[in-house]
Amino acid sequence: MAEEKATTEEGTVFVGNKPPMSYVLAVVTQFNSGFKEVSIKARGRAISRAVDTAEIVRNKFVPNAKVKDIKIGTETLTNEEGRTTNVSSIEIVLSME
Amino acid sequence: MAEEKATTEEGTVFVGNKPPMSYVLAVVTQFNSGFKEVSIKARGRAISRAVDTAEIVRNKFVPNAKVKDIKIGTETLTNEEGRTTNVSSIEIVLSME
Repeated sequence: MAEEKATTEEGTVFVGNKPPMSYVLAVVTQFNSGFKEVSIKARGRAISRAVDTAEIVRNKFVPNAKVKDIKIGTETLTNEEGRTTNVSSIEIVLSME
Repeated sequence: MAEEKATTEEGTVFVGNKPPMSYVLAVVTQFNSGFKEVSIKARGRAISRAVDTAEIVRNKFVPNAKVKDIKIGTETLTNEEGRTTNVSSIEIVLSME
């Protein structure tokens, strides 16, 4: 994972249950540390917060960041009892170029 | 709106707070009624449900549907007291082609 980051010059922020501004700060920090692209990832209910994060970054903090790509998918999780559930996922790639 | 649909051959489903299967059924119905594209739209917390809807349609009901485009944005809402709030939005376009 770390090697991949170095190759693609892409940072990653995983969005969970904290307030959106935590993740906004993380994305802005990644851009400031030299990444040209930052990938915002989330699953399940945090997907809405990932979109909030991308929008706040673009509209308030990094006006020249563009949405380069958005992917959606389904991940299969296995719980402690061995049962599987499907959860939706999103990846939003913001780019400075 | 009805004219636009006829021109673009695109149906639209607005995702709200009902269970995802309600919206899955709506999307499948639009495809079956002849639309080549169906646009799934949501705002705020319903964004996660819009992604669920698109994924369930693709994985379970319309295997040849592809994600043609995903757009995110910010809409400004004004409440009864005249105060404005920003809310994130998503549009996922599924295509049969």
